Amino acid sequence: MTRQELINLIQERRSFLCVGLDVDKNKMPEHLRNEKDGVFLFNKAIIDATIDYAVAYKPNLAFYEAMGIEGLVQLKKTMEYLHSLDKKAFTIADAKRGDIGNTSQQYAKAFLDPSGDYNFDSLTVAPYMGADSVQPFTVYEGKWVILLALTSNKGAFDFQFLPVDEQHKLFEKVLETSQQWGNKDNMMYVVGATKADMLTQVRAIAPDNFLLVPGVGAQGGSLEEVCKYGLNRDCGLLVNSSRGIIYASTGMDFAERAAEEALKLQRQMASVL
Amino acid sequence: MTRQELINLIQERRSFLCVGLDVDKNKMPEHLRNEKDGVFLFNKAIIDATIDYAVAYKPNLAFYEAMGIEGLVQLKKTMEYLHSLDKKAFTIADAKRGDIGNTSQQYAKAFLDPSGDYNFDSLTVAPYMGADSVQPFTVYEGKWVILLALTSNKGAFDFQFLPVDEQHKLFEKVLETSQQWGNKDNMMYVVGATKADMLTQVRAIAPDNFLLVPGVGAQGGSLEEVCKYGLNRDCGLLVNSSRGIIYASTGMDFAERAAEEALKLQRQMASVL
Repeated sequence: MTRQELINLIQERRSFLCVGLDVDKNKMPEHLRNEKDGVFLFNKAIIDATIDYAVAYKPNLAFYEAMGIEGLVQLKKTMEYLHSLDKKAFTIADAKRGDIGNTSQQYAKAFLDPSGDYNFDSLTVAPYMGADSVQPFTVYEGKWVILLALTSNKGAFDFQFLPVDEQHKLFEKVLETSQQWGNKDNMMYVVGATKADMLTQVRAIAPDNFLLVPGVGAQGGSLEEVCKYGLNRDCGLLVNSSRGIIYASTGMDFAERAAEEALKLQRQMASVL
Repeated sequence: MTRQELINLIQERRSFLCVGLDVDKNKMPEHLRNEKDGVFLFNKAIIDATIDYAVAYKPNLAFYEAMGIEGLVQLKKTMEYLHSLDKKAFTIADAKRGDIGNTSQQYAKAFLDPSGDYNFDSLTVAPYMGADSVQPFTVYEGKWVILLALTSNKGAFDFQFLPVDEQHKLFEKVLETSQQWGNKDNMMYVVGATKADMLTQVRAIAPDNFLLVPGVGAQGGSLEEVCKYGLNRDCGLLVNSSRGIIYASTGMDFAERAAEEALKLQRQMASVL
Protein backbone atom coordinates (compact mmCIF):
# COMPACT_ATOMS: atom_id res chain seq x y z
CA MET A 1 0.00 0.00 0.00
CA THR A 2 1.44 3.36 -1.02
CA ARG A 3 1.53 6.44 1.20
CA GLN A 4 -1.25 8.07 -0.80
CA GLU A 5 -3.45 4.97 -0.55
CA LEU A 6 -2.92 4.92 3.21
CA ILE A 7 -3.80 8.61 3.51
CA ASN A 8 -6.93 8.05 1.41
CA LEU A 9 -7.96 5.16 3.67
CA ILE A 10 -7.49 7.31 6.77
CA GLN A 11 -9.66 10.04 5.24
CA GLU A 12 -12.37 7.61 4.12
CA ARG A 13 -12.72 5.85 7.47
CA ARG A 14 -11.92 8.97 9.50
CA SER A 15 -9.63 6.78 11.57
CA PHE A 16 -5.96 6.06 12.06
CA LEU A 17 -6.58 3.09 14.30
CA CYS A 18 -4.39 0.00 14.10
CA VAL A 19 -5.71 -3.14 15.76
CA GLY A 20 -3.01 -5.32 17.30
CA LEU A 21 -3.76 -8.98 16.71
CA ASP A 22 -1.66 -10.33 19.60
CA VAL A 23 -3.54 -13.55 20.06
CA ASP A 24 -2.86 -15.55 23.20
CA LYS A 25 -4.91 -18.76 23.32
CA ASN A 26 -5.26 -18.43 27.11
CA LYS A 27 -7.00 -15.09 26.71
CA MET A 28 -9.22 -16.04 23.78
CA PRO A 29 -12.94 -16.72 24.31
CA GLU A 30 -13.27 -20.22 25.69
CA HIS A 31 -15.50 -21.52 22.93
CA LEU A 32 -12.70 -20.90 20.38
CA ARG A 33 -9.69 -22.18 22.34
CA ASN A 34 -9.93 -25.80 21.32
CA GLU A 35 -11.55 -25.31 17.95
CA LYS A 36 -9.62 -26.16 14.77
CA ASP A 37 -8.43 -22.87 13.29
CA GLY A 38 -9.66 -21.16 16.45
CA VAL A 39 -7.02 -18.44 16.23
CA PHE A 40 -7.90 -17.65 12.65
CA LEU A 41 -11.62 -17.64 13.47
CA PHE A 42 -10.93 -15.28 16.36
CA ASN A 43 -8.94 -12.93 14.11
CA LYS A 44 -11.57 -13.10 11.38
CA ALA A 45 -14.31 -12.14 13.84
CA ILE A 46 -12.21 -9.26 15.20
CA ILE A 47 -11.43 -8.03 11.68
CA ASP A 48 -15.06 -8.23 10.56
CA ALA A 49 -16.14 -6.35 13.69
CA THR A 50 -13.56 -3.56 13.48
CA ILE A 51 -12.62 -2.94 9.85
CA ASP A 52 -15.06 -0.03 9.47
CA TYR A 53 -13.25 1.74 12.32
CA ALA A 54 -9.65 0.72 11.67
CA VAL A 55 -7.15 1.24 8.85
CA ALA A 56 -4.46 -1.23 9.90
CA TYR A 57 -3.94 -4.64 11.50
CA LYS A 58 -0.78 -5.60 13.31
CA PRO A 59 -0.21 -9.24 14.27
CA ASN A 60 2.72 -9.54 16.65
CA LEU A 61 4.78 -12.49 15.41
CA ALA A 62 5.83 -13.58 18.91
CA PHE A 63 2.30 -14.68 19.77
CA TYR A 64 2.02 -16.82 16.64
CA GLU A 65 5.53 -18.28 16.95
CA ALA A 66 4.78 -19.22 20.57
CA MET A 67 2.08 -21.57 19.22
CA GLY A 68 4.69 -23.32 17.04
CA ILE A 69 4.35 -23.88 13.33
CA GLU A 70 0.57 -24.22 13.71
CA GLY A 71 0.49 -20.61 14.91
CA LEU A 72 2.06 -19.47 11.65
CA VAL A 73 -0.53 -21.42 9.69
CA GLN A 74 -3.17 -19.42 11.57
CA LEU A 75 -1.32 -16.20 10.71
CA LYS A 76 -1.15 -17.16 7.05
CA LYS A 77 -4.91 -17.79 7.00
CA THR A 78 -5.48 -14.44 8.69
CA MET A 79 -3.40 -12.65 6.05
CA GLU A 80 -5.16 -14.49 3.22
CA TYR A 81 -8.45 -13.37 4.70
CA LEU A 82 -7.32 -9.73 4.91
CA HIS A 83 -6.10 -9.84 1.30
CA SER A 84 -9.45 -11.31 0.16
CA LEU A 85 -11.56 -8.46 1.53
CA ASP A 86 -12.96 -5.63 -0.57
CA LYS A 87 -12.36 -3.31 2.38
CA LYS A 88 -8.64 -2.80 2.42
CA ALA A 89 -6.36 -2.40 5.43
CA PHE A 90 -2.66 -1.69 5.91
CA THR A 91 -0.89 -4.72 7.37
CA ILE A 92 2.04 -4.67 9.77
CA ALA A 93 4.18 -7.66 10.73
CA ASP A 94 5.25 -6.65 14.22
CA ALA A 95 8.35 -8.80 14.09
CA LYS A 96 11.19 -6.57 15.38
CA ARG A 97 13.61 -8.21 12.94
CA GLY A 98 17.01 -7.03 11.69
CA ASP A 99 20.30 -8.74 10.83
CA ILE A 100 23.32 -8.25 8.56
CA GLY A 101 22.44 -7.20 5.00
CA ASN A 102 22.19 -10.57 3.25
CA THR A 103 20.15 -11.93 6.16
CA SER A 104 17.77 -8.97 6.38
CA GLN A 105 17.12 -9.62 2.68
CA GLN A 106 15.81 -13.02 3.70
CA TYR A 107 13.52 -11.49 6.34
CA ALA A 108 12.24 -9.00 3.77
CA LYS A 109 11.46 -11.90 1.46
CA ALA A 110 9.71 -13.78 4.26
CA PHE A 111 7.35 -10.97 5.21
CA LEU A 112 7.04 -8.51 2.33
CA ASP A 113 7.39 -10.54 -0.85
CA PRO A 114 4.05 -10.75 -2.69
CA SER A 115 4.73 -14.41 -3.50
CA GLY A 116 5.44 -15.30 0.14
CA ASP A 117 3.14 -16.86 2.72
CA TYR A 118 2.13 -13.50 4.25
CA ASN A 119 2.62 -10.54 1.87
CA PHE A 120 2.55 -7.90 4.61
CA ASP A 121 2.67 -4.19 3.71
CA SER A 122 5.28 -3.51 6.38
CA LEU A 123 7.55 -4.93 9.05
CA THR A 124 8.91 -3.54 12.34
CA VAL A 125 12.72 -3.58 12.51
CA ALA A 126 15.23 -2.93 15.33
CA PRO A 127 17.95 -0.35 14.55
CA TYR A 128 20.94 -1.64 16.54
CA MET A 129 22.73 -3.23 13.56
CA GLY A 130 22.57 -0.11 11.39
CA ALA A 131 22.09 0.72 7.72
CA ASP A 132 22.61 -2.62 5.99
CA SER A 133 20.24 -4.31 8.42
CA VAL A 134 17.43 -1.90 7.56
CA GLN A 135 17.78 -1.00 3.89
CA PRO A 136 16.79 -4.41 2.47
CA PHE A 137 13.25 -3.72 3.73
CA THR A 138 12.92 -0.54 1.67
CA VAL A 139 13.30 -2.04 -1.80
CA TYR A 140 9.85 -3.57 -2.27
CA GLU A 141 7.50 -1.27 -4.16
CA GLY A 142 4.68 0.01 -1.94
CA LYS A 143 6.10 -1.74 1.14
CA TRP A 144 7.47 -0.24 4.32
CA VAL A 145 10.02 -0.64 7.06
CA ILE A 146 8.86 0.56 10.49
CA LEU A 147 11.98 1.29 12.50
CA LEU A 148 12.02 1.22 16.30
CA ALA A 149 12.88 4.68 17.57
CA LEU A 150 11.32 5.07 21.01
CA THR A 151 9.52 2.09 22.46
CA SER A 152 6.70 2.05 25.00
CA ASN A 153 8.29 -0.24 27.60
CA LYS A 154 10.27 0.47 30.75
CA GLY A 155 13.44 -0.93 29.19
CA ALA A 156 13.36 1.94 26.67
CA PHE A 157 15.16 3.98 29.35
CA ASP A 158 18.17 1.63 29.40
CA PHE A 159 19.66 2.78 26.09
CA GLN A 160 17.27 4.87 23.99
CA PHE A 161 17.70 8.02 26.10
CA LEU A 162 21.49 7.88 26.38
CA PRO A 163 23.12 11.10 25.11
CA VAL A 164 25.33 10.29 22.14
CA ASP A 165 26.42 13.85 21.41
CA GLU A 166 25.55 17.35 22.56
CA GLN A 167 22.40 17.47 20.45
CA HIS A 168 21.15 13.91 20.45
CA LYS A 169 19.86 11.14 22.59
CA LEU A 170 20.24 7.69 21.02
CA PHE A 171 16.64 7.56 19.76
CA GLU A 172 17.11 10.96 18.10
CA LYS A 173 20.31 9.75 16.46
CA VAL A 174 18.45 6.70 15.19
CA LEU A 175 15.79 8.97 13.71
CA GLU A 176 18.30 11.34 12.15
CA THR A 177 20.70 8.75 10.74
CA SER A 178 17.92 6.58 9.35
CA GLN A 179 16.46 9.53 7.42
CA GLN A 180 19.22 8.70 4.92
CA TRP A 181 18.10 5.06 4.56
CA GLY A 182 14.59 5.60 3.37
CA ASN A 183 11.98 8.28 2.87
CA LYS A 184 8.42 9.16 3.80
CA ASP A 185 7.15 6.68 1.20
CA ASN A 186 8.85 3.59 2.62
CA MET A 187 9.87 4.30 6.21
CA MET A 188 7.84 4.77 9.38
CA TYR A 189 8.95 4.86 13.01
CA VAL A 190 7.71 3.22 16.19
CA VAL A 191 7.22 5.85 18.91
CA GLY A 192 5.55 4.67 22.11
CA ALA A 193 2.45 6.50 23.34
CA THR A 194 3.73 6.26 26.91
CA LYS A 195 6.27 8.91 25.93
CA ALA A 196 3.91 11.18 23.98
CA ASP A 197 5.65 14.40 25.03
CA MET A 198 8.73 13.13 23.19
CA LEU A 199 6.77 13.32 19.93
CA THR A 200 7.79 16.97 19.64
CA GLN A 201 11.45 15.95 19.37
CA VAL A 202 10.52 13.15 16.99
CA ARG A 203 8.59 15.51 14.71
CA ALA A 204 11.50 17.97 14.69
CA ILE A 205 13.65 15.28 13.04
CA ALA A 206 11.03 13.31 11.12
CA PRO A 207 8.22 15.75 10.23
CA ASP A 208 6.83 13.78 7.31
CA ASN A 209 7.17 10.12 8.26
CA PHE A 210 4.23 8.13 9.52
CA LEU A 211 4.60 7.07 13.15
CA LEU A 212 3.28 3.80 14.52
CA VAL A 213 2.28 4.49 18.10
CA PRO A 214 1.76 1.53 20.42
CA GLY A 215 0.96 1.75 24.10
CA VAL A 216 -2.43 3.47 24.03
CA GLY A 217 -4.76 1.72 26.47
CA ALA A 218 -3.30 -1.25 28.40
CA GLN A 219 0.16 0.35 28.57
CA GLY A 220 -1.22 3.70 29.73
CA GLY A 221 -0.65 6.07 26.79
CA SER A 222 -3.13 8.85 26.02
CA LEU A 223 -4.58 9.29 22.53
CA GLU A 224 -5.14 12.99 23.14
CA GLU A 225 -1.48 13.59 24.00
CA VAL A 226 -0.33 11.55 21.00
CA CYS A 227 -2.45 13.64 18.63
CA LYS A 228 -1.40 16.90 20.23
CA TYR A 229 2.29 16.28 19.59
CA GLY A 230 2.31 13.76 16.75
CA LEU A 231 -0.21 14.69 14.03
CA ASN A 232 1.12 16.20 10.82
CA ARG A 233 -0.70 17.57 7.77
CA ASP A 234 -1.17 14.05 6.32
CA CYS A 235 -2.26 12.71 9.71
CA GLY A 236 1.05 10.83 9.91
CA LEU A 237 -0.06 8.55 12.72
CA LEU A 238 -1.15 4.95 13.11
CA VAL A 239 -2.22 4.45 16.71
CA ASN A 240 -2.31 0.87 17.89
CA SER A 241 -4.54 -0.76 20.45
CA SER A 242 -4.26 -4.49 21.09
CA ARG A 243 -5.53 -5.88 24.38
CA GLY A 244 -8.04 -3.06 24.90
CA ILE A 245 -9.89 -4.15 21.75
CA ILE A 246 -9.34 -7.83 21.20
CA TYR A 247 -9.84 -8.84 24.85
CA ALA A 248 -12.57 -6.31 25.65
CA SER A 249 -14.61 -9.41 26.47
CA THR A 250 -13.67 -13.07 26.63
CA GLY A 251 -17.27 -14.18 26.30
CA MET A 252 -19.46 -14.95 23.30
CA ASP A 253 -19.80 -11.19 22.78
CA PHE A 254 -16.04 -10.62 22.21
CA ALA A 255 -16.48 -9.33 18.65
CA GLU A 256 -19.29 -6.93 19.53
CA ARG A 257 -17.31 -5.59 22.47
CA ALA A 258 -14.22 -5.23 20.24
CA ALA A 259 -16.32 -3.24 17.76
CA GLU A 260 -17.51 -0.96 20.57
CA GLU A 261 -13.98 -0.26 21.74
CA ALA A 262 -12.74 0.33 18.20
CA LEU A 263 -15.69 2.65 17.53
CA LYS A 264 -14.88 4.67 20.67
CA LEU A 265 -11.33 5.22 19.44
CA GLN A 266 -12.47 5.93 15.88
CA ARG A 267 -14.82 8.67 17.15
CA GLN A 268 -12.00 10.32 19.07
CA MET A 269 -9.83 10.09 15.98
CA ALA A 270 -12.51 11.50 13.68
CA SER A 271 -12.81 14.51 15.97
CA VAL A 272 -9.15 15.45 15.51
CA LEU A 273 -8.89 14.72 11.77
CA MET B 1 22.80 -27.28 28.11
CA THR B 2 24.52 -25.88 31.21
CA ARG B 3 27.75 -23.93 31.16
CA GLN B 4 29.68 -26.89 32.60
CA GLU B 5 28.25 -29.25 29.98
CA LEU B 6 29.28 -26.82 27.25
CA ILE B 7 32.80 -26.54 28.67
CA ASN B 8 33.04 -30.34 28.87
CA LEU B 9 31.95 -30.64 25.25
CA ILE B 10 34.58 -28.12 24.16
CA GLN B 11 37.27 -30.08 26.02
CA GLU B 12 36.15 -33.45 24.63
CA ARG B 13 36.03 -32.34 21.00
CA ARG B 14 38.92 -29.90 21.39
CA SER B 15 36.82 -27.43 19.44
CA PHE B 16 34.72 -24.33 19.96
CA LEU B 17 33.37 -24.33 16.42
CA CYS B 18 29.77 -23.35 15.72
CA VAL B 19 28.42 -24.27 12.29
CA GLY B 20 25.94 -21.75 10.91
CA LEU B 21 23.09 -23.52 9.15
CA ASP B 22 22.04 -20.57 6.95
CA VAL B 23 20.44 -22.61 4.23
CA ASP B 24 19.61 -20.84 0.99
CA LYS B 25 17.97 -23.17 -1.54
CA ASN B 26 19.73 -21.39 -4.39
CA LYS B 27 23.12 -22.24 -2.92
CA MET B 28 22.34 -25.82 -1.97
CA PRO B 29 23.67 -28.73 -4.03
CA GLU B 30 21.47 -29.07 -7.07
CA HIS B 31 20.46 -32.67 -6.41
CA LEU B 32 18.78 -31.59 -3.14
CA ARG B 33 17.04 -28.41 -4.27
CA ASN B 34 13.84 -29.98 -5.50
CA GLU B 35 13.80 -32.97 -3.22
CA LYS B 36 11.10 -33.28 -0.55
CA ASP B 37 12.72 -32.35 2.77
CA GLY B 38 15.80 -31.26 0.81
CA VAL B 39 16.71 -28.59 3.35
CA PHE B 40 16.49 -31.04 6.23
CA LEU B 41 18.50 -33.63 4.28
CA PHE B 42 21.14 -30.98 3.55
CA ASN B 43 21.34 -30.02 7.24
CA LYS B 44 21.45 -33.67 8.31
CA ALA B 45 24.34 -34.37 5.97
CA ILE B 46 26.22 -31.27 7.20
CA ILE B 47 25.62 -32.21 10.84
CA ASP B 48 26.73 -35.82 10.32
CA ALA B 49 29.86 -34.62 8.52
CA THR B 50 30.86 -31.97 11.06
CA ILE B 51 29.67 -33.00 14.52
CA ASP B 52 33.02 -34.52 15.51
CA TYR B 53 34.63 -31.12 14.89
CA ALA B 54 31.92 -28.76 16.12
CA VAL B 55 30.20 -28.11 19.45
CA ALA B 56 27.34 -25.92 18.28
CA TYR B 57 24.87 -25.43 15.41
CA LYS B 58 23.28 -22.11 14.63
CA PRO B 59 20.39 -21.99 12.16
CA ASN B 60 19.62 -18.40 11.20
CA LEU B 61 15.84 -18.05 11.31
CA ALA B 62 15.70 -15.59 8.41
CA PHE B 63 16.73 -18.26 5.91
CA TYR B 64 14.01 -20.65 7.08
CA GLU B 65 11.32 -17.96 7.30
CA ALA B 66 12.17 -16.87 3.75
CA MET B 67 11.02 -20.34 2.60
CA GLY B 68 7.64 -19.76 4.25
CA ILE B 69 6.02 -22.14 6.70
CA GLU B 70 7.60 -25.09 4.90
CA GLY B 71 11.03 -23.69 5.87
CA LEU B 72 10.09 -23.87 9.54
CA VAL B 73 9.00 -27.48 9.09
CA GLN B 74 12.51 -28.17 7.78
CA LEU B 75 13.98 -26.38 10.81
CA LYS B 76 11.83 -28.41 13.17
CA LYS B 77 13.03 -31.64 11.56
CA THR B 78 16.61 -30.44 11.84
CA MET B 79 16.20 -29.73 15.54
CA GLU B 80 14.49 -33.09 16.13
CA TYR B 81 17.44 -34.75 14.43
CA LEU B 82 19.97 -32.87 16.59
CA HIS B 83 18.05 -33.82 19.75
CA SER B 84 17.98 -37.48 18.68
CA LEU B 85 21.76 -37.83 18.38
CA ASP B 86 23.97 -39.44 21.01
CA LYS B 87 26.62 -36.86 20.19
CA LYS B 88 25.32 -33.65 21.73
CA ALA B 89 25.67 -30.12 20.42
CA PHE B 90 24.72 -26.68 21.73
CA THR B 91 21.95 -25.16 19.63
CA ILE B 92 21.49 -21.49 18.83
CA ALA B 93 18.40 -19.91 17.27
CA ASP B 94 19.96 -16.95 15.49
CA ALA B 95 16.75 -14.98 15.54
CA LYS B 96 17.73 -11.47 16.74
CA ARG B 97 14.41 -11.17 18.60
CA GLY B 98 13.37 -8.81 21.39
CA ASP B 99 10.16 -6.96 22.31
CA ILE B 100 8.37 -5.58 25.38
CA GLY B 101 8.38 -7.96 28.36
CA ASN B 102 5.14 -9.87 27.85
CA THR B 103 5.97 -10.30 24.16
CA SER B 104 9.56 -11.45 24.71
CA GLN B 105 8.04 -14.09 26.99
CA GLN B 106 6.22 -15.41 23.93
CA TYR B 107 9.45 -15.50 21.90
CA ALA B 108 11.17 -17.35 24.76
CA LYS B 109 8.35 -19.89 24.73
CA ALA B 110 8.60 -20.25 20.95
CA PHE B 111 12.31 -21.04 20.87
CA LEU B 112 13.44 -22.25 24.30
CA ASP B 113 10.51 -24.12 25.79
CA PRO B 114 11.23 -27.87 25.92
CA SER B 115 7.65 -28.60 24.84
CA GLY B 116 7.87 -26.29 21.81
CA ASP B 117 8.57 -27.14 18.19
CA TYR B 118 12.31 -26.38 18.43
CA ASN B 119 13.66 -26.56 22.01
CA PHE B 120 16.81 -24.54 21.29
CA ASP B 121 19.46 -24.08 23.98
CA SER B 122 19.75 -20.38 23.21
CA LEU B 123 18.51 -17.44 21.19
CA THR B 124 20.16 -14.26 19.89
CA VAL B 125 18.44 -11.07 21.07
CA ALA B 126 18.81 -7.38 20.13
CA PRO B 127 19.39 -4.99 23.07
CA TYR B 128 17.67 -1.79 21.90
CA MET B 129 14.51 -2.27 23.97
CA GLY B 130 16.38 -2.85 27.25
CA ALA B 131 15.96 -4.99 30.36
CA ASP B 132 12.40 -6.24 30.11
CA SER B 133 12.96 -7.28 26.48
CA VAL B 134 15.92 -9.48 27.45
CA GLN B 135 15.19 -10.94 30.88
CA PRO B 136 12.35 -13.29 29.82
CA PHE B 137 14.98 -15.34 27.96
CA THR B 138 17.02 -15.98 31.12
CA VAL B 139 14.39 -17.84 33.12
CA TYR B 140 14.57 -21.26 31.46
CA GLU B 141 16.87 -23.66 33.31
CA GLY B 142 19.98 -24.50 31.29
CA LYS B 143 18.98 -22.08 28.50
CA TRP B 144 20.69 -18.94 27.31
CA VAL B 145 20.17 -15.50 25.89
CA ILE B 146 22.88 -14.35 23.47
CA LEU B 147 22.74 -10.56 23.41
CA LEU B 148 24.01 -8.53 20.46
CA ALA B 149 26.90 -6.36 21.63
CA LEU B 150 29.14 -5.71 18.63
CA THR B 151 28.03 -7.09 15.29
CA SER B 152 30.20 -8.05 12.32
CA ASN B 153 28.51 -5.90 9.67
CA LYS B 154 29.30 -2.47 8.31
CA GLY B 155 26.14 -1.04 9.88
CA ALA B 156 27.63 -1.77 13.33
CA PHE B 157 29.41 1.58 12.97
CA ASP B 158 26.14 3.53 12.75
CA PHE B 159 25.23 3.26 16.43
CA GLN B 160 27.29 0.67 18.32
CA PHE B 161 30.41 2.86 18.52
CA LEU B 162 28.66 6.07 19.56
CA PRO B 163 30.08 7.47 22.82
CA VAL B 164 27.35 7.49 25.48
CA ASP B 165 29.51 8.83 28.32
CA GLU B 166 33.17 9.53 28.98
CA GLN B 167 33.97 5.86 29.54
CA HIS B 168 31.62 4.01 27.23
CA LYS B 169 30.73 3.47 23.64
CA LEU B 170 27.19 2.17 23.17
CA PHE B 171 28.28 -1.48 22.79
CA GLU B 172 30.26 -1.19 26.04
CA LYS B 173 27.24 0.28 27.79
CA VAL B 174 25.13 -2.62 26.50
CA LEU B 175 27.69 -5.06 27.91
CA GLU B 176 27.92 -3.30 31.26
CA THR B 177 24.21 -2.68 31.82
CA SER B 178 23.22 -6.18 30.75
CA GLN B 179 25.61 -7.74 33.28
CA GLN B 180 22.80 -7.00 35.75
CA TRP B 181 20.24 -8.91 33.69
CA GLY B 182 21.85 -12.32 33.67
CA ASN B 183 25.06 -14.10 34.55
CA LYS B 184 27.74 -16.30 33.03
CA ASP B 185 25.38 -19.29 33.26
CA ASN B 186 22.58 -17.85 31.14
CA MET B 187 23.96 -14.95 29.11
CA MET B 188 26.40 -14.81 26.20
CA TYR B 189 27.23 -11.96 23.84
CA VAL B 190 27.60 -11.65 20.09
CA VAL B 191 30.91 -10.00 19.22
CA GLY B 192 31.85 -9.95 15.54
CA ALA B 193 35.20 -11.38 14.46
CA THR B 194 35.66 -8.50 12.03
CA LYS B 195 36.31 -6.34 15.11
CA ALA B 196 38.57 -8.78 16.98
CA ASP B 197 40.77 -6.08 18.51
CA MET B 198 37.67 -4.82 20.33
CA LEU B 199 37.58 -8.10 22.25
CA THR B 200 39.99 -6.60 24.78
CA GLN B 201 37.38 -4.00 25.73
CA VAL B 202 34.68 -6.65 25.75
CA ARG B 203 36.69 -8.89 28.08
CA ALA B 204 37.34 -5.98 30.43
CA ILE B 205 33.59 -5.71 31.03
CA ALA B 206 32.52 -9.33 30.54
CA PRO B 207 35.46 -11.53 31.54
CA ASP B 208 33.47 -14.68 32.22
CA ASN B 209 30.66 -14.74 29.66
CA PHE B 210 30.83 -16.90 26.61
CA LEU B 211 31.08 -14.91 23.37
CA LEU B 212 29.49 -16.00 20.12
CA VAL B 213 31.79 -14.77 17.38
CA PRO B 214 30.43 -14.63 13.83
CA GLY B 215 32.28 -13.29 10.84
CA VAL B 216 35.23 -15.70 10.60
CA GLY B 217 35.68 -16.71 6.98
CA ALA B 218 33.31 -15.18 4.43
CA GLN B 219 33.08 -11.90 6.35
CA GLY B 220 36.87 -11.65 6.77
CA GLY B 221 37.49 -12.19 10.49
CA SER B 222 40.64 -13.97 11.69
CA LEU B 223 40.43 -16.92 14.10
CA GLU B 224 43.92 -16.20 15.41
CA GLU B 225 43.02 -12.63 16.36
CA VAL B 226 39.77 -13.73 17.97
CA CYS B 227 41.61 -16.26 20.17
CA LYS B 228 44.37 -13.81 21.04
CA TYR B 229 41.95 -11.28 22.51
CA GLY B 230 38.88 -13.36 23.35
CA LEU B 231 39.82 -16.63 25.07
CA ASN B 232 39.31 -16.92 28.82
CA ARG B 233 40.19 -19.73 31.24
CA ASP B 234 37.03 -21.67 30.32
CA CYS B 235 37.61 -21.05 26.60
CA GLY B 236 34.64 -18.67 26.63
CA LEU B 237 34.27 -18.61 22.85
CA LEU B 238 31.98 -20.10 20.26
CA VAL B 239 33.33 -19.18 16.83
CA ASN B 240 30.86 -19.45 13.99
CA SER B 241 31.46 -20.29 10.37
CA SER B 242 28.52 -20.56 8.02
CA ARG B 243 29.13 -20.16 4.28
CA GLY B 244 32.77 -21.29 4.50
CA ILE B 245 31.62 -24.72 5.68
CA ILE B 246 28.15 -25.42 4.34
CA TYR B 247 28.86 -24.10 0.84
CA ALA B 248 32.47 -25.34 0.58
CA SER B 249 31.16 -27.27 -2.41
CA THR B 250 27.81 -27.25 -4.16
CA GLY B 251 28.43 -30.62 -5.75
CA MET B 252 27.76 -34.18 -4.61
CA ASP B 253 30.79 -33.87 -2.33
CA PHE B 254 29.33 -30.98 -0.28
CA ALA B 255 29.32 -32.94 3.00
CA GLU B 256 32.90 -34.20 2.59
CA ARG B 257 34.10 -30.72 1.77
CA ALA B 258 32.18 -29.30 4.74
CA ALA B 259 33.90 -31.88 6.96
CA GLU B 260 37.32 -30.85 5.60
CA GLU B 261 36.66 -27.17 6.31
CA ALA B 262 35.33 -27.92 9.80
CA LEU B 263 38.33 -30.15 10.50
CA LYS B 264 40.72 -27.35 9.45
CA LEU B 265 39.11 -24.99 11.92
CA GLN B 266 38.95 -27.65 14.65
CA ARG B 267 42.71 -28.26 14.30
CA GLN B 268 43.45 -24.58 14.69
CA MET B 269 41.16 -24.48 17.71
CA ALA B 270 42.74 -27.58 19.30
CA SER B 271 46.14 -25.92 19.02
CA VAL B 272 45.06 -22.95 21.15
CA LEU B 273 43.03 -24.88 23.75
